Order: sequence, then structure tokens, then C-alpha cells
Amino acid sequence: MRLDVYLQPMSTKPALHTILSPKLLDIYDVSDNIVVIIDVFRATSTIATALYNGAKRVIPVDVVDKCIEIGMQTGGITAGERDGKIIPGLAHGNSPAEYPRSFIEGKTLVLTTTNGTKLLHMALNKGAAEVVTGSFPNLSAVCKYLVSQQKNVILGCSAWKDRFNLEDTLFAGAVIQQVKEHFTIHCDSSLMAADMYALHQNDIHQFIRKTTHWHRLASYGLESDLEYCVTPDVANILPIYRNGDLVVANS
Amino acid sequence: MRLDVYLQPMSTKPALHTILSPKLLDIYDVSDNIVVIIDVFRATSTIATALYNGAKRVIPVDVVDKCIEIGMQTGGITAGERDGKIIPGLAHGNSPAEYPRSFIEGKTLVLTTTNGTKLLHMALNKGAAEVVTGSFPNLSAVCKYLVSQQKNVILGCSAWKDRFNLEDTLFAGAVIQQVKEHFTIHCDSSLMAADMYALHQNDIHQFIRKTTHWHRLASYGLESDLEYCVTPDVANILPIYRNGDLVVANS
Repeated sequence: MRLDVYLQPMSTKPALHTILSPKLLDIYDVSDNIVVIIDVFRATSTIATALYNGAKRVIPVDVVDKCIEIGMQTGGITAGERDGKIIPGLAHGNSPAEYPRSFIEGKTLVLTTTNGTKLLHMALNKGAAEVVTGSFPNLSAVCKYLVSQQKNVILGCSAWKDRFNLEDTLFAGAVIQQVKEHFTIHCDSSLMAADMYALHQNDIHQFIRKTTHWHRLASYGLESDLEYCVTPDVANILPIYRNGDLVVANS
Repeated sequence: MRLDVYLQPMSTKPALHTILSPKLLDIYDVSDNIVVIIDVFRATSTIATALYNGAKRVIPVDVVDKCIEIGMQTGGITAGERDGKIIPGLAHGNSPAEYPRSFIEGKTLVLTTTNGTKLLHMALNKGAAEVVTGSFPNLSAVCKYLVSQQKNVILGCSAWKDRFNLEDTLFAGAVIQQVKEHFTIHCDSSLMAADMYALHQNDIHQFIRKTTHWHRLASYGLESDLEYCVTPDVANILPIYRNGDLVVANS
């Protein structure tokens, strides 16, 4: 009789880890993981908003030339910013406010960004089992999905040019607060993210003003964008990656 | 008349940044920085303790063979652990408790470790202006030195096999709490470290038990080591790198 079988825990929960920068992704084997791409200011907030407002799909691309090329091929709206201005050759910026239903419904958005798009392609290239995107505007949709799948999870903070940032970490903490009972979490990054979110969840609109990225973007006059980007569940759908496109899950 | 000169701030404080993993070091130009190597569990705690107890010098080496070779050349005590056990071929482990004054005074310690030694050599190879080591046992000595130098600072967390860890982050936060008035800090890692230390400074002996590294090392029976390693100022000297050796600054 194999007693050791009976000495195993009755149920083994899937593992959840948080990575604080794209540079830390290659420490993990992502092949059996759902990877949540987090770029709160503002790529994944904009992606959730465009899809929530009826965009047919968002095509995330890593370089500007490809954005222009795919825009021409698909008839999609090209979008991207550098330093708070629309990139020359593209039609729109990286603000969620640019994509109300009256404008984006039924259309394709071809989006290039500095941080979020880069991490998304890294996760795909490393063979992630599934890639979704997360931000405060779609917090609950992300949590519901992760709990339903019972698979290992990596919360991937896109950071800023590989530097740790607080806004992505706070979102990871917000997810962990909602889903932690369903996962095994042996991960100091996750413990920290949960602590930071618990510490600041009630003053997040004030606290976020202390972050480096806030100062960078607010200097471009983007305060109202940033306020929106830390507001939970205002665009509560789940963007999931399918064959080159981000689309609404189960749509 | 150059008005812009007069519009500069009256005094410019040096910058302080925190890196949360050796993998994030290459984002920064360290050539005009003091780099503080932090490996709380346990390399930099052991280094401070050995020097405080009168060791002539500590030679940090990155590989075991080199540790043995330099031990033979110098007549030094070779030391290093893997998985809580002394590495075959070396004489001692990586516990601060192994280096009381009665044993280590006047001697050379040749130490190899997984994380701290690696980051130290990375910082040297990248041309850091100065390299010192920090840990709770020598917290005040580190802070006093950083304030006195008025140079840019990088607090370098050694992490665990490149994964973010809480104990090194808490030490970075403890330093920031003491020195922040003397530096310009535009760095989310530093804001987070300061928050985490402020949150846990009064329950650090309890909180530290939640970290992944505690679980790893406590399973080897090292609890009392770990308690010591989060106790401030019990070996309050400053180890500084000089020509291959860590020695007590100003000695």
C-alpha cells in the first residue's frame, strides 16, 4: 500500500507568482502559466477600455513600423505615444479617453507601447500557456478568470523601461487580495504587492501621485487619464490573446 | 546674463536608487555611485560580523574553486554554503555565529556565496565608484557613511537567485528612513522599500518569518542566525572594498 499517496495534501492549489520587471520573466518557466500583462499607465487600461467599448480587436505590436504596416493591411486605427505625444506616422495616442464607443465600436486598434507590448511579446515568445491583460478598469474580470481556470499564474508587471514601478505592483496586489485563497503563494514579490495594496487601497488616488510615472505623465497634462487608470471595474471585460489579436474572452 | 543658471535649485542633493535584483543593475550607470551590496540572509551580515570581531579582511569570491585557491595562497579560512551545508572542500559555513572574536581576530576570511558575492562582483565589473556592504547588524555605520560622502547611491539588493526578496528590501527601507533627507529620491523601488520598512519595523521578527528565504533557511535549523541578521547595529562597522578585500573603513 502506497502510504505516501495518502500523506499528500488533499488538494494542491496552483501557484501564483509576481514578476516586478520584464527582466525577471526569464527566471520562470511560463509554459504552464497564465501570464497577466499589467501596464496600468496606460497600455492595458487602454486595451480594456477599447474592447469594453466595442472594439473588434486590439493588435499589440512591438515596433512603430509594424504598427503602420498592420494598420494599412487591416484598415485598423494605428496608435502609440512617446513622451506623451502621438508617434509621427500613427493616427492616435495611448489614452483610454480617445476610445469611446462612438469612435471605436467595431473597429480594429493597432497599438504599440513602450512597456506593456514588450512584455506581452516576451511572454508569447517564451511559450506562455495563455496571455491576458490586466488593469484596474478590468480588475474583477481578471480575478474571476484566474479563479475559474485553476492554472498557475504569473502576474507580469511591465514596469517602465525595465524599472520597477508602483502602479503595476499595486494592481498585482489588488488581484492577490481577491484571489489569494485559491492559490499557493510562495513569492516575496507577491507578499510585497499585497502589502502595498492593502496599505494604499484607501488612498490610492493620493498615493499614486508620489510615483515616478505619475510625475512623468502628469507633466504632459494627463492627470485625468491617470485617475481613470486606477479606477476599478469601469471597463470590466477580459482581453485575451488569440492568434495575434487581443479580443474579449468568450466573445 | 544666463538667467537659467539662477533658476536652478539652490542645492542639488545626490540621487539614491534601489535595485531589487542583480538583473536590474545594468539599467543604471554605477560609475559615479557608491553601491551598497545587501544580502541580509546572510552574506553581508556575516561579513560585518567577521570584520567587527577583528577579522583582518574578508575576500569575497564568486566561485568555489577560487575560494579554495585563494584560501591556500593567503592561509585564510575558506567559507561557503549551499543548501545550508558547508560546501565540500571549504572549512566553514556562512553563519555569522561561526565567527566570534576568539576565532576570527586577525585572520583572513575567504567567502563565497550564491547571491551577495555575485552582485558585488557585478558592481565592481561595471565600475562602481565605491563598493560597501550593508546589513542590519551594521545599519547605522552604512547610513553614517552615505550621508557623509554626498555621492550618488545605489542600494543593491542581492535577492535570491535573481528573485526579489523581502529581507534585502526591508534593509534598503531601513537605510532610506535614516538618510532620505540627504538625497533626491525619484525611484519607485525606494518608495516601496521605505513603505515596507515603515510598515514592518515594529514586527520585523514576526514578519520576516513569512518570507520565502526564511522558510528555506529555517528548514536547515538556522532560525537563530536569521533572528541575528535582522537585529540592527550589533556589528556596527563599515566593510569597504579595497583591492580585492573587504576591510573596515578608515581602519
